[in-house]
Amino acid sequence: MDKKFLLAAKWILPAWDREPIKDGALLIRDGKIESLGPREELVAQHPGLPVEDLGEALIFPGLINAHTHASMTIFRGLADDLPLMTWLQEYIFPVESHLKGEWVYWGARLAIAEMIRAGVTCFCDMYLFEPWVIRAVEETGLRAALGEGLFDFPSPGYGPLEKGLALTEDLLQSYEKHPRINIIVCPHAVYTCSPETLKKVREIAERHEAIIHIHLSETEDEVQQCLERYGRRPVAHLRELGLLNKSLHIAHAVELTEEEIELLASTGVSVAHCPESNLKLGSGVARIPEMIAAGVKVSLGTDGPASNNDLDLLSEMRTAALIQKGLRRDPTVLPAKEVFRMATEAGARALGFPHCGRLEPGYQADLAALDLETTSLTPVHDPLSLLVYSARAGEVSDLMVEGRWLMREGRILTFDEKETRTQVTLIAEEIQALLRERPTP
Amino acid sequence: MDKKFLLAAKWILPAWDREPIKDGALLIRDGKIESLGPREELVAQHPGLPVEDLGEALIFPGLINAHTHASMTIFRGLADDLPLMTWLQEYIFPVESHLKGEWVYWGARLAIAEMIRAGVTCFCDMYLFEPWVIRAVEETGLRAALGEGLFDFPSPGYGPLEKGLALTEDLLQSYEKHPRINIIVCPHAVYTCSPETLKKVREIAERHEAIIHIHLSETEDEVQQCLERYGRRPVAHLRELGLLNKSLHIAHAVELTEEEIELLASTGVSVAHCPESNLKLGSGVARIPEMIAAGVKVSLGTDGPASNNDLDLLSEMRTAALIQKGLRRDPTVLPAKEVFRMATEAGARALGFPHCGRLEPGYQADLAALDLETTSLTPVHDPLSLLVYSARAGEVSDLMVEGRWLMREGRILTFDEKETRTQVTLIAEEIQALLRERPTP
Ligand SMILES: [Zn+2]
Ligand SMILES: [Zn+2]
Repeated sequence: MDKKFLLAAKWILPAWDREPIKDGALLIRDGKIESLGPREELVAQHPGLPVEDLGEALIFPGLINAHTHASMTIFRGLADDLPLMTWLQEYIFPVESHLKGEWVYWGARLAIAEMIRAGVTCFCDMYLFEPWVIRAVEETGLRAALGEGLFDFPSPGYGPLEKGLALTEDLLQSYEKHPRINIIVCPHAVYTCSPETLKKVREIAERHEAIIHIHLSETEDEVQQCLERYGRRPVAHLRELGLLNKSLHIAHAVELTEEEIELLASTGVSVAHCPESNLKLGSGVARIPEMIAAGVKVSLGTDGPASNNDLDLLSEMRTAALIQKGLRRDPTVLPAKEVFRMATEAGARALGFPHCGRLEPGYQADLAALDLETTSLTPVHDPLSLLVYSARAGEVSDLMVEGRWLMREGRILTFDEKETRTQVTLIAEEIQALLRERPTP
Repeated sequence: MDKKFLLAAKWILPAWDREPIKDGALLIRDGKIESLGPREELVAQHPGLPVEDLGEALIFPGLINAHTHASMTIFRGLADDLPLMTWLQEYIFPVESHLKGEWVYWGARLAIAEMIRAGVTCFCDMYLFEPWVIRAVEETGLRAALGEGLFDFPSPGYGPLEKGLALTEDLLQSYEKHPRINIIVCPHAVYTCSPETLKKVREIAERHEAIIHIHLSETEDEVQQCLERYGRRPVAHLRELGLLNKSLHIAHAVELTEEEIELLASTGVSVAHCPESNLKLGSGVARIPEMIAAGVKVSLGTDGPASNNDLDLLSEMRTAALIQKGLRRDPTVLPAKEVFRMATEAGARALGFPHCGRLEPGYQADLAALDLETTSLTPVHDPLSLLVYSARAGEVSDLMVEGRWLMREGRILTFDEKETRTQVTLIAEEIQALLRERPTP
C-alpha cells in the first residue's frame, strides 16, 4: 500500500452538505485525506504521485451503521411475521441460551462482509460474547464501536452481571489506544437493567470517558412498563439516573413526546434511527423530522439482521426517507442529503469517531465506491439521488478504511468470504437441530 | 435450447402457497412446466433427459411488475424531494414534451435489463410512444401487458385523442395472438380523461375483450377534484361509466372507503399496489390488509423509476410487508407469503396471463433463480423469508421466460446491456441540455 497516492473516480461526493465533484480525485496520505478536488488539478499539483483510478464510480464517505447486533446474521430469516414475544421466546431466546463465542465470531465475520458490500466502513455493535466480535473487527479491518450487552439476569456470555461489568472495564483499558475500535458501555434496556445496574454503568463510562449505548423508547410496551415500575417514562428515568448527556447514544426512540425530544436535543444525546426493524417488528415510526428540527443528533442503523433482515444501510437510507414522506403526505420531508448526513457524519460523531463521515482534509480515508456501470444506477442525473434512492448493497465495488483497501473490484481482500459463508451455514444447521429439540410450547 | 429438459437447484419455491422443495427439479417441455418434485425422483422417472443444474440457487416463479412506466428510467433521479406539481411542471412535463420514440425504446430496454436482474419475467406498462416499448419487449423476450397512455390533451406520442384510440385498436388487432404480449387499454386517470373518453375506452376494451388499466384514487387531491367535477368519488365515477368489472386493473388505490373496498371486491377489479412510489411522492399508504380481507385481488408494482427510483420488485415486496406491520404496530400483518402472492400469481391474473405466477404442471416456464452463494443471503433458514425480506435486485443470477433463458449466470443473453446503458447515458445528456434551456419558472 502506497503511503501517499491519488484516488480518482468519475464522481466524488465529499459529504452530505457538499456538491459532488465530477472527474475528481483525493490525495490520501498515511490513511488520511490531505486534499481533494478536480482530478486534473490534483495531478498537476502532485506530479509523479501514483493514481489509483476507479473509473466509472462514485466515491462517497463510508457509511456508519449506528446500531446493530451483527452476529445475529446466524438467525436471519429464522422466524418472521410473528408477535414479538413468540419470536423472542420460541426462537431467539432458546437458541441464544446455547450461544457460543465461535458462533458470534462467524456471525460477525459474515456481517462484516455484508456491510462492506453495502459501503459501511464503521458500525456500532452490542451483543453477547462481544470479544469475539472485536476479534472479527480486528482481523477484517473495519472500524467499530463495540460493547458487551449488559443486563441483570445471567448472560451466556459472561455469567453474572459483575463479570460483565468487569469485562467491559477490561476491554476499555485494553483498547484505549486502538485506532479503529472504540469500546462502549452497553446496558441492554431499561426493562432489563435495574437502576442500580445503570448507575454502575454510568460510573464505568465516566471513569473511562466512554459512550453509553442503550435501546430506549422502542415500543409502547416499554414505555408503559417503565411508567408502572418507576413512575417515569424511559427518557425521564435516564435523566434521574444521570445518564442524559452527550456521551449517551440511544437506539430507536420511537416513542417520544415533544418534551422528550427537546430534552434529548438540549442534553446532546444522539439517536440511532432503525426504521426497517421498527417497521418489521411492528414498533412504529420514529418522529425523525421533529427530532432534526429540534436539533437532536440523529444517525441511522439497521438493528440486527434477524429483525431487518439485512445489514444494507443503503436501503435503510431509502426507507428512512420514504416512510416519513409517505406518512406526512409530503415529498419534501427528510430529503436525500439529510438521510445521507444521518448515515455518515452524524453516525461518526455519535460513535466517537469525529474524523470520519466526510471526505475532507484531516478526515480518515474511510470511503466506498459505487459501481456506476450498473444498469439500475443508469443514468447519472444526480449522484446523491442515486446513492440514497437507487443504490443497493452489492453495487459497491470498492471500500477502504484508514487508507487500506478492504474490498477491490468486488473482492474482499482481508478475509475469506466464502469460508465465512460455509461456517455460518454449518452454524445454521446446528441452530435448526436445536429448534427441533426444543420443548413445544 | 432443448425442447425438453430438467432444471435442478438446491431449492425450488413453486408458489406462494406451496412449501419449498429442497434439492428439487422441474421438467420443462416446450416452454411449459410438465412436472416438478425432488430431483432424484424426476431424474429416475426421466432417465437420459438433460439436466441443467443451477446449484446453490433458489428457483421461484418470475415476479410480475403490475404497474410501471418502464421508459422513465431515463428520468431516474432527475429531481426528488419536491412537491408533486413542481416535479411534474418544472422537470417531467417540459422534458416529456420533447419525448421521442427512440428515448422510449432505450429507456424500456434499460428497464427490461433492470427488471430481469430483479427476477421480473412480466410487467404492465402504460406510457407514451408505447409501440417502442412493444418493440423492446419483442426483442428482449420478456412477457408484458402494454398500452398507450390515453388522455384528452394532445400527446407527443400520437397527437389528438382519436389517433390514440385508433392506435390502441390497431395494436389490439396486431398482437391478438402474440404469446407474450397482451395489449391493454390505458386511460391515464379520471382527471385527465373525460367521461366521454372513458366511454370510448370501454367500447374498445369490450370489443376486444381487453383489460383496462388506469391510475385510480392515488391521492386525496384526485378524490377531491373528482368529487368537485362529477359529484362522485373516483370508484363511483367508474361504476357510473360501466367500467367496474373484472377486466379493470387499477394502479394505487390509496384513497378508498370501506364501501369502495367492498365494491372493488364484489366487481372483481384488481389493484396494483405501488407502495414505494406512494411513499416517495407523499401520497400515503394503501389499506392492503383490508383489501385482501375483503377479497380484492391485489398485485404489486413499482410505478415508474422516476418516482421510486428503481424497478426492484424484490425490495417492493419487502416495503409492502414492512410498512403495513409498522403502521399497524403488528408484525403478523401481511406476512411474506401474502406479498409473494401479490408479486406472482395475483399479478399474472390481473394482466391476463393466467398460466404464469406459479411453477406447476401446465404453467409457463417463467422463472428466476436467486444466487444463494451470496453473503447477505446466508444462511438459508427459510427460502421464502430470504426472497421477501433479504433478497435484492442484482442477486438474481438466471431468468427464463417460456422456457427460454434471458439471463444465465448474471449475463443477459438476448440483448446488449452495456450498449443500452451507453444509449441511455447519451439521452440523459440531451435531457440535461433541455432542462438548462427551459424558461426559469
Ligand atoms: Zn437492537
Ligand atoms: Zn403510474
